[in-house]
Amino acid sequence: MTEPLRPAAEGVRTRLFQVIFESDTPLAKGFDLALILMILASVIVVMLDTVDPLSAAYGEWFYWVEWGFTLAFTAELLVRLWILDKPLRYLRSFYGVIDVIAILPTWLILLLPGAQTLVIVRVLRVLRIFRVLRLMQFVGEGRLLVEALLRSWHQIFLFLFTVFLLVTLFASLVYMIEPPEAGFTSIPKAIYWAIVTLTTVGYGDIVPVTPLGQAISNLVMLIGYSIIAVPTGVFSAEVIRSIRADRYSDQACPGCGHDRHEKRALYCLKCGTWLDEETQDPHLAEPPSDTRKE
Amino acid sequence: MTEPLRPAAEGVRTRLFQVIFESDTPLAKGFDLALILMILASVIVVMLDTVDPLSAAYGEWFYWVEWGFTLAFTAELLVRLWILDKPLRYLRSFYGVIDVIAILPTWLILLLPGAQTLVIVRVLRVLRIFRVLRLMQFVGEGRLLVEALLRSWHQIFLFLFTVFLLVTLFASLVYMIEPPEAGFTSIPKAIYWAIVTLTTVGYGDIVPVTPLGQAISNLVMLIGYSIIAVPTGVFSAEVIRSIRADRYSDQACPGCGHDRHEKRALYCLKCGTWLDEETQDPHLAEPPSDTRKE
Amino acid sequence: MTEPLRPAAEGVRTRLFQVIFESDTPLAKGFDLALILMILASVIVVMLDTVDPLSAAYGEWFYWVEWGFTLAFTAELLVRLWILDKPLRYLRSFYGVIDVIAILPTWLILLLPGAQTLVIVRVLRVLRIFRVLRLMQFVGEGRLLVEALLRSWHQIFLFLFTVFLLVTLFASLVYMIEPPEAGFTSIPKAIYWAIVTLTTVGYGDIVPVTPLGQAISNLVMLIGYSIIAVPTGVFSAEVIRSIRADRYSDQACPGCGHDRHEKRALYCLKCGTWLDEETQDPHLAEPPSDTRKE
Amino acid sequence: MTEPLRPAAEGVRTRLFQVIFESDTPLAKGFDLALILMILASVIVVMLDTVDPLSAAYGEWFYWVEWGFTLAFTAELLVRLWILDKPLRYLRSFYGVIDVIAILPTWLILLLPGAQTLVIVRVLRVLRIFRVLRLMQFVGEGRLLVEALLRSWHQIFLFLFTVFLLVTLFASLVYMIEPPEAGFTSIPKAIYWAIVTLTTVGYGDIVPVTPLGQAISNLVMLIGYSIIAVPTGVFSAEVIRSIRADRYSDQACPGCGHDRHEKRALYCLKCGTWLDEETQDPHLAEPPSDTRKE
Repeated sequence: MTEPLRPAAEGVRTRLFQVIFESDTPLAKGFDLALILMILASVIVVMLDTVDPLSAAYGEWFYWVEWGFTLAFTAELLVRLWILDKPLRYLRSFYGVIDVIAILPTWLILLLPGAQTLVIVRVLRVLRIFRVLRLMQFVGEGRLLVEALLRSWHQIFLFLFTVFLLVTLFASLVYMIEPPEAGFTSIPKAIYWAIVTLTTVGYGDIVPVTPLGQAISNLVMLIGYSIIAVPTGVFSAEVIRSIRADRYSDQACPGCGHDRHEKRALYCLKCGTWLDEETQDPHLAEPPSDTRKE
Repeated sequence: MTEPLRPAAEGVRTRLFQVIFESDTPLAKGFDLALILMILASVIVVMLDTVDPLSAAYGEWFYWVEWGFTLAFTAELLVRLWILDKPLRYLRSFYGVIDVIAILPTWLILLLPGAQTLVIVRVLRVLRIFRVLRLMQFVGEGRLLVEALLRSWHQIFLFLFTVFLLVTLFASLVYMIEPPEAGFTSIPKAIYWAIVTLTTVGYGDIVPVTPLGQAISNLVMLIGYSIIAVPTGVFSAEVIRSIRADRYSDQACPGCGHDRHEKRALYCLKCGTWLDEETQDPHLAEPPSDTRKE
Repeated sequence: MTEPLRPAAEGVRTRLFQVIFESDTPLAKGFDLALILMILASVIVVMLDTVDPLSAAYGEWFYWVEWGFTLAFTAELLVRLWILDKPLRYLRSFYGVIDVIAILPTWLILLLPGAQTLVIVRVLRVLRIFRVLRLMQFVGEGRLLVEALLRSWHQIFLFLFTVFLLVTLFASLVYMIEPPEAGFTSIPKAIYWAIVTLTTVGYGDIVPVTPLGQAISNLVMLIGYSIIAVPTGVFSAEVIRSIRADRYSDQACPGCGHDRHEKRALYCLKCGTWLDEETQDPHLAEPPSDTRKE
Repeated sequence: MTEPLRPAAEGVRTRLFQVIFESDTPLAKGFDLALILMILASVIVVMLDTVDPLSAAYGEWFYWVEWGFTLAFTAELLVRLWILDKPLRYLRSFYGVIDVIAILPTWLILLLPGAQTLVIVRVLRVLRIFRVLRLMQFVGEGRLLVEALLRSWHQIFLFLFTVFLLVTLFASLVYMIEPPEAGFTSIPKAIYWAIVTLTTVGYGDIVPVTPLGQAISNLVMLIGYSIIAVPTGVFSAEVIRSIRADRYSDQACPGCGHDRHEKRALYCLKCGTWLDEETQDPHLAEPPSDTRKE
């Protein structure tokens, strides 16, 4: 969805486009807020409907509220498709797919009585919030983090591979040492234990009972407690690098050679020479007396 | 409470103001210390009173100690109100409300016999310590942290929203997979399990019992173990940025008024004017060829 | 294995060397990928074979698949040895030992019927993946992390020693306070509890039951929660230092031979000689008054 | 113990002093190593003696080994006292007290039969390792960390105070909500639960059972999971500041005013001018052609 979706050039559709797809008028902002609240409310209704006492008491009510949300989301999707020039392209986009997923399960109940169990699919509609956040430029804020993650993904992959190796080896070891009665009935179970231990979750549903098993457990816990420093350190360094890279330019002063200027600098902070990227020759550069950026 | 509360211009009240509201004389410091100790002691008494054996043995004693503290705090509040010129404004301020909350529950017992259960409200008096810490300039130290948090709140909000999404989706998934006997009786319960797992708390009161549920659990644990690096990295970077913000001076350029220069700057980075702290008049300032700050 | 293993100068062997030991042709990359998949598949088979229901149903099948992998790895090892000029030196190297370990257990079953239990040894073949990752230059990415760890090992050792001291002292203390019925039957058991608590794993299989024991537990938990900041901070600082080490060039001073200059340096910081990458001859180098690198 | 302890000026005592109190000859290093091994061995014996099966089987043997270590440590202490000029001052120092504590419990058994239970005191001898580590200059490595901790103690205190406030308030809240059957029988118990939850330890011995209690639990877990970023960020920033402060001096170049030189720099890296702290006047400074530090 890199290329913006264009509305047809009609009055009503254009105005609806501004309200539904954009976010810079008060009306559009109100629509966004209403949409977020409706999505959250509908997800909460789906969740509460799984609580037996509530379902017994208010099941009927939840049923009709669910249909109300489904009809509202269906109407919203139809309006979105009517507005756009290329509705099929929208349906194939990420947000289009999510829009369909948000309403499909309820409609399917009419056809398939068993579809009521598609709870997980109905919960997926929570992803629709992303669209609104993106409009509100929240997601843009997250790009710094995603870029920092991408730049350090080689190191994070190595970290997770090391965790995988440690988990595999310690799990096999403890599987051989501990009796099956302690819960270590297979290596996959032992891997579950090792991950529970290394990540410091520590459910306690499977714990070693032999002294040797507890000694290995001690080692796994200390390793898990220590190596969390690795992804944290790598990611901190990346975020700091991202922030700092923004500030300083590589440009050297043509007057004194000082080379650590902030990007916004127009004059060298050491000798006052005019900094100009195009004309590096100080004899030609003529600092305009009243021009300043920003 | 941005504008300082002023005492009436009488001798006793002024002196009491210095002792009670300020913190720069030995007497005022002693008063602060006594106040902290009294607050802590009264909160500890409230807590110990809930321990059945202690309550049975010393209940009477606790009752009278509680009344002692309440009378002392009431007297203190009355003195504070007497000292100030605008006592009603103080009562509406944050610390005024806390002062009232600290004594109200015990007085209410005289009117309402059931008010004894307002334990949580009585514990709120612990917030009174903030006032003393603020006087002692501890809270000023914390401003750096709060500012770093505020500046990164967009990213922290995105992080928490991602956590919320992950928790919702994994909880729904495990709710569908696990049998209700394992404790996953509803999605809210499954969300409780997902948060217990993702945050690496790991109570172990609800754990998956099917192989598929344990595999998803493994994934949630590894995600929780890894993404803790994100808020840590963001906050570390913010604290470092706060510290580095020290490198900028408050000095404005005498030529163009620009006021965000690094402390080591000798010339304005916007207009090249020589920066000199002593001679702010640009007509007098003459950049001497061999003078340099350090 | 610092010196590269050289193939004999024959056509087939040279080509096989390029495929098996190197990683820059499409064929060699395909071989690497196939090898990783085979290693993972064989380890997964070993693991699944320990799950009783699966072992009962597919035990026969697992047996033959295991033999298939063993024969394939054996053939691969023989080809590796045939290719190399010094096969014995390879067998003594880290990867040679792992290669032998990967196939030995299955062959030993022919001789020793009880060798089937060497599950842990068979799982070690997962280490073979390292060779492929090394070829793919993933391991090179990890060197930064390993170097950061090595440079901070003094501080990490001190941290772990402090953890060891805290664990020993708190474990002895709680051993004396808690009744044996709570599980604190010996100091080693109490150490297990202390590590479970300090690393925030918290299995819950041994927990203090006396108020004093719970108070000490509170202290241990808060300490464990706080001091995790120490290795994280040290390692973050080291990674940032590693990244920053990039700012130094390898260039030696033509005047005094000093070789640790920042990249932005124009003059040697030890003897003041002009640094110029092109003209390393100090007699020719003439610091031009208006030439500057960038 | 800031002032070094001086040996009496006799031959044997001086040589013993070098072996026992110093660490720069091979013999002294061997003595240090032997001492560390003996301390560790004696602590391990104390620990194993608390394991019932081992105590039953080897109790006699442990008893005599313990006496052997006690006699050896007593002899060592007597030699230390004989060597020094001011033995009483040594006995009052930190290491002197630890030395006495290390041997006292065993001797007390001769007088008081019940002293056998002083296990915790005997474990304190593990602190003697610090002396050896100090000699080996490990502790010096830790000073950076301790200084970083000290410089950030105001912020760490505020963090712990916030944790204390959160724990108190949430504990009181959950105490009121949860039934006593769930384990929340008093506020101190609820505080234990809140610390177990906030620090992400999660024993699971006390867990909320009501939906509201679990909702509050979710909140406490998310807070605990997030605010760990605060001490980590503060400490990371302090360590980075410590490392960086070491590298650069505040000194500006007398030639061009550049002010970001590494401390080891003798010449400005921008203009090659000789940097000299005493003679800041560039006309007087005469760069000596062959003098360089390092």
